Amino acid sequence: MSLAATPKPPYWAVIFTSQRTEHDAGYAATAAKMEELAKAQPGYLGLEHAGDAGTSITVSYWRSEEDLRAWKQVLEHRDAQQRGREAWYRRYEVRVCKVERSYGFSAT
Amino acid sequence: MSLAATPKPPYWAVIFTSQRTEHDAGYAATAAKMEELAKAQPGYLGLEHAGDAGTSITVSYWRSEEDLRAWKQVLEHRDAQQRGREAWYRRYEVRVCKVERSYGFSAT
Repeated sequence: MSLAATPKPPYWAVIFTSQRTEHDAGYAATAAKMEELAKAQPGYLGLEHAGDAGTSITVSYWRSEEDLRAWKQVLEHRDAQQRGREAWYRRYEVRVCKVERSYGFSAT
Repeated sequence: MSLAATPKPPYWAVIFTSQRTEHDAGYAATAAKMEELAKAQPGYLGLEHAGDAGTSITVSYWRSEEDLRAWKQVLEHRDAQQRGREAWYRRYEVRVCKVERSYGFSAT
């Protein structure tokens, strides 16, 4: 993963923290497809992911709250959310946030 | 990691996304110490972490913006931030966010 090149705040972040079940069938392909679809959505600013098979954090960044709401309603995304609850996730938490400030560091 | 048991929004989140160097000396001990210190800070609500040696995402949750600013200024934390820039991190990004909404799922 590379860090997302987000613009100057304010913008929006969706923090998706999850713990997976042992059921893996179809997960990787769907995750890749959802990332591809998200990137094509209006207002998509970037995505960061870290984790392993058990626990992971995915943060997606959006220009506005309307844009992230629209992404949540995309039909293929809704199907994936449903399959997630039925099979892949033991637990998850979604937090919708407004990014107010940011700063970074890069070694020279 | 377990998911953080955060209260009803609004509250604050600090998303720390990092890519590490190959220099590991002292990192794990300092990271553990910083987690312990953060937990003892006023307004600390929880912490979530996912990643491997290369890339990681740590999200800490706080009652107010004042609380997360105070944590940034704690002397031992400032020392750790400095050592991070000198040795451990190739790149990082810090995003300070206000959590506006949250929802979750737990398999029965």
